[in-house]
Amino acid sequence: MGKVRVSAFSVSLDGFAAGPGQDLQHPFGVGADEIPAWLRKTRMFHEMIGRPGGATGVDDEVARSSMEGIGAWIMGRNMFGPIRGPWPDHAWKGWWGPNPPYHVPVFVLTHHARPSIEMEGGTVFHFVTDGMESALARAKDVAGSKDIRIGGGASVIRQYLQARLIDEVRLAIAPVFIGKGENLFHGLDLPELGYATVESKAGESATHVTIRQA
Amino acid sequence: MGKVRVSAFSVSLDGFAAGPGQDLQHPFGVGADEIPAWLRKTRMFHEMIGRPGGATGVDDEVARSSMEGIGAWIMGRNMFGPIRGPWPDHAWKGWWGPNPPYHVPVFVLTHHARPSIEMEGGTVFHFVTDGMESALARAKDVAGSKDIRIGGGASVIRQYLQARLIDEVRLAIAPVFIGKGENLFHGLDLPELGYATVESKAGESATHVTIRQA
Repeated sequence: MGKVRVSAFSVSLDGFAAGPGQDLQHPFGVGADEIPAWLRKTRMFHEMIGRPGGATGVDDEVARSSMEGIGAWIMGRNMFGPIRGPWPDHAWKGWWGPNPPYHVPVFVLTHHARPSIEMEGGTVFHFVTDGMESALARAKDVAGSKDIRIGGGASVIRQYLQARLIDEVRLAIAPVFIGKGENLFHGLDLPELGYATVESKAGESATHVTIRQA
Repeated sequence: MGKVRVSAFSVSLDGFAAGPGQDLQHPFGVGADEIPAWLRKTRMFHEMIGRPGGATGVDDEVARSSMEGIGAWIMGRNMFGPIRGPWPDHAWKGWWGPNPPYHVPVFVLTHHARPSIEMEGGTVFHFVTDGMESALARAKDVAGSKDIRIGGGASVIRQYLQARLIDEVRLAIAPVFIGKGENLFHGLDLPELGYATVESKAGESATHVTIRQA
């Protein structure tokens, strides 16, 4: 069986994964574009969005490996899109266009039911309304021997960590301060939960830290 | 005139400068020895405590420059020692023995008055009971063209930052999680206060980040 993991998840030095005021124009919230800036610079990201160029190096290696060997994704509905509350219609199909970069089933945690959406390239969005443990069970069913990646956002990752359901977290620490928004570490005592750092590696534009259950 | 600065101030990845339960045996609190571990490995620290060995490199350079060009220090009384409340007597003279590594006046913020203490090697501890602005004014009087270093702890640094009285902060981010204790970033919105990262450099055992007022 594969791992349950978080990979290439970007946080600021003061622990924020997103700023406040997430909307259609600000997928990471206002004033928080710098948090994932390291990722946008990589060749992997350039390839993903069909642009030439992009930098190779440690950051690029981390970005590439973050997308490999994954059999299913789990994400919060705020990572799926800017809509809050009940779905007004079924028009919104994620930030990523007709062919999202997942290519496997993606389980979206939400309080509001919605039919699954089959996208191009193998991505299927399933909407899970009966909780994070149910989402994980369904992800395990389809992932087989591959890993399950918890995509985010911060509150989803925090909940899975608090339930000790994550095997490994790879964070990308961006050298910026955000000051407000979604803080990954708020109320999270990782040593108490049995997690410790096993590796820290400097990339070109972020520091990559791996955390595992002891 | 010199800068008002924080240098080589160690925090964990989740923002803690110290664990809970600081006492005589645990100057950094319980479970928090790893926060300043990078510093203890440096040749500079070995020299400071009169031991042979210690590593050279980026961490050592940061440690050395943190102690250079300083005309006065300011620190909270929790950094001066483990005693809380009124001083029971005048026996406690700091963690650092008869010849502390400061060699200049050190202004200790406290609610409890106490006569100044002249130590060997030029360090004089002054106890300031009329607030952080008074301590800074007195430090400026003696520092001349040299810098004033705000030593810590976290709450003292946070208060000076919130008052925008610090020109530069150099943090050493240790690749560990602490989970509880004294958090430097709690309630601190650095961008709102006009501070931003100007440099991030990987050391052997910590990442060194410099923050300045824009």
